Amino acid sequence: MTASKTNIALVCPGGPIAPDLAKELGEIATDHCGNGVNLDFHPQCFREAGHFAGTDAERSAAFLEAANDPEYDAVWFARGGYGAGRLDDGLYEKLNDAARAKTYLGYSDAGYILARLDALGIGKPAHGPMATDLVRVDGHAAMRRALDFLASETSEGLEPAAARTRCVAFNITVLAHFIGLDWAPDFSGRIVMLEDVGEYLYRTDRAMQAILMNPKMKDAAGVMLGRISDVPENDRPFGADAVEITRYWCERAGVSYLGRADIGHDSGNKIVPFLREGDIDPDAANNIVQFSRRPRS
Amino acid sequence: MTASKTNIALVCPGGPIAPDLAKELGEIATDHCGNGVNLDFHPQCFREAGHFAGTDAERSAAFLEAANDPEYDAVWFARGGYGAGRLDDGLYEKLNDAARAKTYLGYSDAGYILARLDALGIGKPAHGPMATDLVRVDGHAAMRRALDFLASETSEGLEPAAARTRCVAFNITVLAHFIGLDWAPDFSGRIVMLEDVGEYLYRTDRAMQAILMNPKMKDAAGVMLGRISDVPENDRPFGADAVEITRYWCERAGVSYLGRADIGHDSGNKIVPFLREGDIDPDAANNIVQFSRRPRS
Repeated sequence: MTASKTNIALVCPGGPIAPDLAKELGEIATDHCGNGVNLDFHPQCFREAGHFAGTDAERSAAFLEAANDPEYDAVWFARGGYGAGRLDDGLYEKLNDAARAKTYLGYSDAGYILARLDALGIGKPAHGPMATDLVRVDGHAAMRRALDFLASETSEGLEPAAARTRCVAFNITVLAHFIGLDWAPDFSGRIVMLEDVGEYLYRTDRAMQAILMNPKMKDAAGVMLGRISDVPENDRPFGADAVEITRYWCERAGVSYLGRADIGHDSGNKIVPFLREGDIDPDAANNIVQFSRRPRS
Repeated sequence: MTASKTNIALVCPGGPIAPDLAKELGEIATDHCGNGVNLDFHPQCFREAGHFAGTDAERSAAFLEAANDPEYDAVWFARGGYGAGRLDDGLYEKLNDAARAKTYLGYSDAGYILARLDALGIGKPAHGPMATDLVRVDGHAAMRRALDFLASETSEGLEPAAARTRCVAFNITVLAHFIGLDWAPDFSGRIVMLEDVGEYLYRTDRAMQAILMNPKMKDAAGVMLGRISDVPENDRPFGADAVEITRYWCERAGVSYLGRADIGHDSGNKIVPFLREGDIDPDAANNIVQFSRRPRS
């Protein structure tokens, strides 16, 4: 391997993936990046234990191993699907210097890990496509966007607002379930982008209250709403759409509603790096982020 | 009206009820209590505004009116169904002395109100049957249990553990969504009873984390699990049942798991008064609660 090659470890903190998906994604990476990218699927990705890709201990160990390995430049979450929040609470204090230099990419249930890394200032967490998005319409585009982000310094796949301001992005249901926990990050001065899939609107409304009325949101720079897709029809129409719901809770909470974000459970899901103060260059022409991959130590 | 008559105001902080249900419940009350009970359904119960029984302002006003009216001994929530959490935050500081003398009965979504009353030390909140439970199998038994509790000093319908210890009871999904908010009550020294209906087990697991790992639960006396009913089948079996899930999160949180509670989304749902220190008589033969209706002022 040459120094310019990007080594990416894939793990599944929630549900498992099929070996065929791993194979197909490997081929796409070769097609798109030539020898510039190496994808290593941790064997844990294919384990099964009830709902999960292996036991909590196995998933925790696989993530820790990948994060702490200096051979890897990035940890790419291959799938969401519930489970990341069950990883050992103790693993986060075991993350080493190699873990601190890495990029972490995923979304949905993987938000549990992105949030904890963000709160601890560990590595470069980013909200964006996962391997399982390959099966979506235009899934290849999502894979190329993720690979370009992980392998190069391009900012083309970034969500436009997230490229120049300090943003975080989370699934609404997931955030609603961790925002009350001690380890949840503080959102002061940051834009919080929100998206969800497959939830009744009354549930989205309930989750928006849990998020917006939480003290951690009090000093957020604002909220941007991503796509709310595959909303099931309820026996009673809710009477307000997702934008109205978001505006309603923003107003009650005294948080600015800043419009739509280009994220969601689909192949168009743009990348939101969780920037810190030092990542933004105020003198650059368009304030484009300095979130590039650091050289391997 | 004589002094011995119990006047009960019914309101719908979430979804509406049908006039036929009100009529039927009135007949049951007369059959069961004779002239001892008077049920007044607030007209708001029959309003409709999207998902809700009237706008947030209308539902807030109806609850405040019923709670503050000295003619009523109790406010009985006629239905859950999402919406109680959207009532005006400001109404709670408008509750008067009459509101402080009342019993409040309901569960599920009504837990938002029970929790706020409990946190503020206002009135006697209790978790138990609502008017809409009439349509369940053995629904009449649930109505009689609720009426007996509201109208007399009987402790027959109480959940056994809740009759002699300081307990609260909530729907898991509802509690998971408010436990992180500023106004959530503290559960120190109290048993928290939990129940749910119609949720995938992975969702119950996620909500249990949100509840058990919240700092408000740290000094709880323990958790008791009510019924978890109508669990939909997922594409992957979860791999643990509701008791195992509860034990798992209790263990992670360092909170005692104290067994099953006789509550749930069914007609067997026993009543859990949210007792305070002074409500329990340590010298009484069986510590039966002193949670009886205070005489109207």
